[in-house]
Amino acid sequence: MLEALKAEVLAANLELPKHGLVTFTWGNVSAIDSERQRMVIKPSGVEYSEMRAEDMVVVDIASGQVIDGRLKPSSDTATHLALYRRYPQIGGIVHTHSRHATIWSQAGKDLPAWGTTHADYFYGTIPCTRPMTPQEIGAEYEYETGKVIIDTFEQRDLDPQQIPAVLVHSHGPFAWGKNAHDAVHNAVVLEECAYMGLFSRQLTPELPSMQSALLDKHYLRKHGKTAYYGQG
Amino acid sequence: MLEALKAEVLAANLELPKHGLVTFTWGNVSAIDSERQRMVIKPSGVEYSEMRAEDMVVVDIASGQVIDGRLKPSSDTATHLALYRRYPQIGGIVHTHSRHATIWSQAGKDLPAWGTTHADYFYGTIPCTRPMTPQEIGAEYEYETGKVIIDTFEQRDLDPQQIPAVLVHSHGPFAWGKNAHDAVHNAVVLEECAYMGLFSRQLTPELPSMQSALLDKHYLRKHGKTAYYGQG
Amino acid sequence: MLEALKAEVLAANLELPKHGLVTFTWGNVSAIDSERQRMVIKPSGVEYSEMRAEDMVVVDIASGQVIDGRLKPSSDTATHLALYRRYPQIGGIVHTHSRHATIWSQAGKDLPAWGTTHADYFYGTIPCTRPMTPQEIGAEYEYETGKVIIDTFEQRDLDPQQIPAVLVHSHGPFAWGKNAHDAVHNAVVLEECAYMGLFSRQLTPELPSMQSALLDKHYLRKHGKTAYYGQG
Amino acid sequence: MLEALKAEVLAANLELPKHGLVTFTWGNVSAIDSERQRMVIKPSGVEYSEMRAEDMVVVDIASGQVIDGRLKPSSDTATHLALYRRYPQIGGIVHTHSRHATIWSQAGKDLPAWGTTHADYFYGTIPCTRPMTPQEIGAEYEYETGKVIIDTFEQRDLDPQQIPAVLVHSHGPFAWGKNAHDAVHNAVVLEECAYMGLFSRQLTPELPSMQSALLDKHYLRKHGKTAYYGQG
Repeated sequence: MLEALKAEVLAANLELPKHGLVTFTWGNVSAIDSERQRMVIKPSGVEYSEMRAEDMVVVDIASGQVIDGRLKPSSDTATHLALYRRYPQIGGIVHTHSRHATIWSQAGKDLPAWGTTHADYFYGTIPCTRPMTPQEIGAEYEYETGKVIIDTFEQRDLDPQQIPAVLVHSHGPFAWGKNAHDAVHNAVVLEECAYMGLFSRQLTPELPSMQSALLDKHYLRKHGKTAYYGQG
Repeated sequence: MLEALKAEVLAANLELPKHGLVTFTWGNVSAIDSERQRMVIKPSGVEYSEMRAEDMVVVDIASGQVIDGRLKPSSDTATHLALYRRYPQIGGIVHTHSRHATIWSQAGKDLPAWGTTHADYFYGTIPCTRPMTPQEIGAEYEYETGKVIIDTFEQRDLDPQQIPAVLVHSHGPFAWGKNAHDAVHNAVVLEECAYMGLFSRQLTPELPSMQSALLDKHYLRKHGKTAYYGQG
Repeated sequence: MLEALKAEVLAANLELPKHGLVTFTWGNVSAIDSERQRMVIKPSGVEYSEMRAEDMVVVDIASGQVIDGRLKPSSDTATHLALYRRYPQIGGIVHTHSRHATIWSQAGKDLPAWGTTHADYFYGTIPCTRPMTPQEIGAEYEYETGKVIIDTFEQRDLDPQQIPAVLVHSHGPFAWGKNAHDAVHNAVVLEECAYMGLFSRQLTPELPSMQSALLDKHYLRKHGKTAYYGQG
Repeated sequence: MLEALKAEVLAANLELPKHGLVTFTWGNVSAIDSERQRMVIKPSGVEYSEMRAEDMVVVDIASGQVIDGRLKPSSDTATHLALYRRYPQIGGIVHTHSRHATIWSQAGKDLPAWGTTHADYFYGTIPCTRPMTPQEIGAEYEYETGKVIIDTFEQRDLDPQQIPAVLVHSHGPFAWGKNAHDAVHNAVVLEECAYMGLFSRQLTPELPSMQSALLDKHYLRKHGKTAYYGQG
């Protein structure tokens, strides 16, 4: 079932250690099928070096039930489900504890757009969620994690296609994209921006966000209707 | 004697350079046999690249005497012994000078739980010991190092199974676990948390510990009786 | 057309990932031919691991038109052109988002000469440009980026041969040299100095520039008429 | 001439890139023969990957003249000579621009003993020299660099065998030892201590030096007459 998508999700998961985003088995990538009925996701707690395409788990989007696979899906499965159900524009999701994005999450701080590296991929500040309530943590915790991400984007009127990542408070980043590979790409950029932002802010403590004209220029030359970056 | 345990201790020692936790011959891992009568530990000052299973040294737990092996055991042997004698729940111990855990030790500061990476492995703040007294340093120094660790856990009423690491003041970390491999795993996580904590605190100088509800949730979903992380 | 120069530009581009200066396809290197009529530059958005010499693009210096190559040139082509037209002493140019040079760019701060590593290659402070105006950003943005670099050097009366790099505000570094390889060499040194400067300034917050006598000595023993470093 | 010593000096030089202490051709290692009449040193500006034992240069200690070798010796040759002439207990010397030791040099600050990693190799604070005078810089600069190191040790009454490294102001570290390999070993430890000290001080800004009892214990268990670390 969904063999091609399993291979794609495996490949995207294996990009995580290659880019230095994960330690041990931390981190997971998923993707949704073209009918948006099933999600393929990494199994829970399996070593990257031993993972095979057939270990990927297929989960039904509507019911959240595993419908193919011998292993348990990632413990963050319900967070992925919440995001796929809410955002039809998302085709792949990644969660990591990458060091510098996690630092911003732990510090409970938004990551402002401070340069064109950020503006090439994210159209503005990457938000940090509010802390979850004891009720949310005590209930369907992983699903509630998805909901607090969605709340954050709604309250701030953000478009998840324009800001394809979030910092979950006291936890770490989720990133997404049009497919699994694209989601991982955004997670790598987030980690770069989190690193550079940390020390940019140290050099200039009250550093304002970059000019909106420059943010527009860089985001739109790669993502707008008139994009002209790359081989087109 | 204890050939399987020697192979296991060698393998755990070799994980240290693989995870970037040691420079030169710094760092040592030990494990205790199932009857808790003998400890197998790395020899002192031998290169990781040249170390073989037969170089591991067997030490009698009760007497502290070497009972098998041609080489001298690690100079920290007495610290390991003190911990095995006191804590029947510990099966493996590791000591390193890994950069960021050592930074917290040198600064003489506890490492608070600031995120779910920490909470997945450590059920609260990782303590830093008090400085040792000149008397302790001048006496059986390495054994006294073990005793100051034990004092720290007792005075703060900490369970070494729930907090499987400590920061020795002006020195560096010790970590432990149910066996040698598990101890090294905890040492790697400690180093990650020490790195991220250093810079989380820089972003938010008076950063409070994470919410206890979130700490409970993450620690207990991996370690409690109702743990549901991994393949079970 | 210009096959030898294409091979040289490819080789210089491949030095960027080798020295850890780029993530993904970020960064680009160009060189100019000996008659200063054509520039060879990296294509836009192509993976370093797949790039071949024949993918390099030849651009006419005077008109800015592509005159050889199947691919689109780097989106930063116009910035390179502006610099080659203005500075006859420059034979190669490199642009990266290398982490620490970019941090100084994002913080909008000049990088002072704080030690002999810097003085061996840069004869004084490496300037950060002013922010570009909305008009400049809205017009021929990449060409205007070149112009703001030139303005910076003119207003401060700097010699681009003595200071072979600049920090573009909210963006990242450009470096140059007598050829493509030399430009990359300077970009690597800039990144080293940016890293070390960041933390030197943390240790001594109001750190003054190094003594001019020492700056002179180190710069001139490698670059002056009486240079005596290397095999000569 | 001195073929065995050339091989040893080559090997020690090649340890520098292996330990991440050098960029490009920066850094140089030398050693002195057993009669203390000749020094073997790295040639100036040659790539580590291309360097061979026969490229090492033999310099007469008394006259400073090259007496064997086709290449020019390191530009820092006179600094090495000054130290060998003054300190009969030194058999090998290394100079690098390793990142964190250089950061302390650039900041013009001594590196205090803040933990047992430091105390295992250095018996107290590693001094930073005063800035050199314009007269010293304008005269025999490299020889004067050696003299300012010697002045620093004399004025502070330090024993170069107990403190086998120095931070040259606005420049970078020199380290030494009983032979070339030992000098490089000390340079690696210095870089570790410089890294950890930088951030220990960030966590605890007015961090006092470690207790003298602990410094004594660790230094003397490895270096004193009653040393018991290693295989003896």
